[in-house]
Amino acid sequence: MTLEDIKALDAADPLREKRDLFSIPEGVIYLDGNSLGALPKATPDAMNDMIHRQWGQDLIRSWNTNDWINAPRRIGDKIGRLIGATEGQVVAADSTSVNLFKALSAASQLNSGRSVLLSETGSFPTDPYMMEGLATASRVRLIPELVDPSRITDRLAPDIAVLLLTQIHYKSGEVWDMSEITRRAHEAGALVIWDLSHSAGAIPVELDECKVDFAVGCGYKYLNGGPGAPAYIYVAERHQSKVRPVLSGWMGHAAPFDFDDRYTPGKGMDRFLCGTPGILGMCALEIGVDIFQTVDMRVLRKKSRQLGDLFIDLVEKKCTGFELASPREADIRGSQVAIRHPDGYAIMQALIERGVIGDFRAPDLLRFGFTPLYTRYIDVWQAVSTLADIMNSNDWRDEKYSVQAEVT
Amino acid sequence: MTLEDIKALDAADPLREKRDLFSIPEGVIYLDGNSLGALPKATPDAMNDMIHRQWGQDLIRSWNTNDWINAPRRIGDKIGRLIGATEGQVVAADSTSVNLFKALSAASQLNSGRSVLLSETGSFPTDPYMMEGLATASRVRLIPELVDPSRITDRLAPDIAVLLLTQIHYKSGEVWDMSEITRRAHEAGALVIWDLSHSAGAIPVELDECKVDFAVGCGYKYLNGGPGAPAYIYVAERHQSKVRPVLSGWMGHAAPFDFDDRYTPGKGMDRFLCGTPGILGMCALEIGVDIFQTVDMRVLRKKSRQLGDLFIDLVEKKCTGFELASPREADIRGSQVAIRHPDGYAIMQALIERGVIGDFRAPDLLRFGFTPLYTRYIDVWQAVSTLADIMNSNDWRDEKYSVQAEVT
Repeated sequence: MTLEDIKALDAADPLREKRDLFSIPEGVIYLDGNSLGALPKATPDAMNDMIHRQWGQDLIRSWNTNDWINAPRRIGDKIGRLIGATEGQVVAADSTSVNLFKALSAASQLNSGRSVLLSETGSFPTDPYMMEGLATASRVRLIPELVDPSRITDRLAPDIAVLLLTQIHYKSGEVWDMSEITRRAHEAGALVIWDLSHSAGAIPVELDECKVDFAVGCGYKYLNGGPGAPAYIYVAERHQSKVRPVLSGWMGHAAPFDFDDRYTPGKGMDRFLCGTPGILGMCALEIGVDIFQTVDMRVLRKKSRQLGDLFIDLVEKKCTGFELASPREADIRGSQVAIRHPDGYAIMQALIERGVIGDFRAPDLLRFGFTPLYTRYIDVWQAVSTLADIMNSNDWRDEKYSVQAEVT
Repeated sequence: MTLEDIKALDAADPLREKRDLFSIPEGVIYLDGNSLGALPKATPDAMNDMIHRQWGQDLIRSWNTNDWINAPRRIGDKIGRLIGATEGQVVAADSTSVNLFKALSAASQLNSGRSVLLSETGSFPTDPYMMEGLATASRVRLIPELVDPSRITDRLAPDIAVLLLTQIHYKSGEVWDMSEITRRAHEAGALVIWDLSHSAGAIPVELDECKVDFAVGCGYKYLNGGPGAPAYIYVAERHQSKVRPVLSGWMGHAAPFDFDDRYTPGKGMDRFLCGTPGILGMCALEIGVDIFQTVDMRVLRKKSRQLGDLFIDLVEKKCTGFELASPREADIRGSQVAIRHPDGYAIMQALIERGVIGDFRAPDLLRFGFTPLYTRYIDVWQAVSTLADIMNSNDWRDEKYSVQAEVT
């Protein structure tokens, strides 16, 4: 593989024009869109209109005239198209964690004869944390249980009420087989919640086809909705009317503007709304989601696999001392690759200083996200070249790179 | 009272220069800041910086370099200064409804020998709706009970676990005596949650001094934080470490970036965070809250009372057919006035068409908010003159005004 080959891949890329829709800083190779998606160029104008005209000029009337009131449903349906959900099954609202609580409390209601909330160890932990929180408070006895991912299917016994899994692992990028796991959970009488935070906008997802019960996900990674963008929740149409929401806020009421003293759940997905939606965040999220409305997810997935394969091939060829911490096989790898090195933190800091932005996950993972809408093959090439330079020159051993920041 | 007197009041208004901090549309008299606050002029620049530099350029690094990670605590402390809360007792996060759930679940944990969640009938109903939701799901038996406001203090019997009240009524503007009610609730062994949605930024609030247990409120009314701005929650320092959060999301963990499988609640107010904060909404909220940092709430309250009194006086003098639906006495009236008319809907539509924006609440209330930072005495004068013109000319009887919109 030569630089010429790489350039040819970019020239032939059917998604190459999508990069122009994003604002990528000069001199930066951004491989962290799996943590915070890049800024779409259309977002600033949309936000200006939102702020100056819709908020500043139209003021309170915008709930009607600019259709703020339907933003959660409208954007939810658009997200639905990316994840294989027909209309009326997704709303954009709240955070992923809050939506996990809605899904967990709903699923445990629907499967009330059973008590175990099952998930895997080592996953992104807001999933098990919300299981714990619900279990401490719940009227019916609920037992959160985490098992090693290799034991999940064996553990699908008749006591499992709900299986909650993140489809793509936040560290390794390993992909669960949604169709197969959902089928096996259903055979065992469990309901399934999929956390799509690392899937939506990264790989094709077919919620309806897989007969998934619930799903949640965030808007700020591959969907490019901005920092802390509103999240979303999917509830299969067959379940919606059977759920009595625990987070029963006024926006989920059948007639919010009747201001009744008693709660009557809204129709369909409406009842999975809670408080007043954050309209500024919704505006940016909608721009990010709109970009996907013309993207064929199979084409995107093909590029995602190739970018990941290229990265792994080049690291193996050009760099020593790393161990692959993601699946080698693209079929079961999401749109990210993690490599392991005992001095991963310092190496990542050295990379970032040179404009290659990935992230570090303790204790030893360097994580790189490949967002096919704006990551080019040449970016992967240059990122690995930079990594090779850092390793060959031992630059990463400079003390300044080993001072740990508080957070990321 | 003549027009000259009105102009003299505006000229002598110590807050008159604050109006210049807001963008008010030409030809509009905006008396709905109690529903959606006006746009601060500083907000667009702050949002541009947030979007172009912090998100677009600095990308994921902004969680550290632009201190996104501390936004909920930083803005929470600033809100705390407006509501009499010393540092470390308020975080900005989620919606008011979600924060109500946090407060209700925490308070009922702390007072676990008791079962009744008490509130008043006819209040803004997301308060009782969240009580209902928690009660349906709760492990301990919880009974939501609504009584007429006149019966609240009598009902403070030994079975009351939690008293939840909105300090200022969303329709009438009537103000509960926070100090007295909190004292009586505590005497009866109940914990108290105050919903400050119509109080913060409208009247002085002294949470610490009144020994309040919990409080919540929204950011999009008097705080001018933008449509659906993040809300906030106050938990008295003495309670914080005793609460095991039910909405135990990763941002409330003691060490979120350790990604432990098990939830360990964060220190102090940290545990009342849940998911990733909506940073775009936080940015606009902070601008709105910052404006108050140099405002003496007693001065603001004095003007608020005078604006309300002036409105009531003028309506009584110039308009017939209305009944006052707010307290006549300014001491127990918030920063809003409601008047009643059987054809209130059509009259409000006629007002709005003439640029006087209040809102209508079924079945017969015209509601007007007086936001002392940007409402002038002349605005009140002109609003009532317009109302008088509409009533005298019978213009409001035009059929076009009686077609009801779907919402607001």
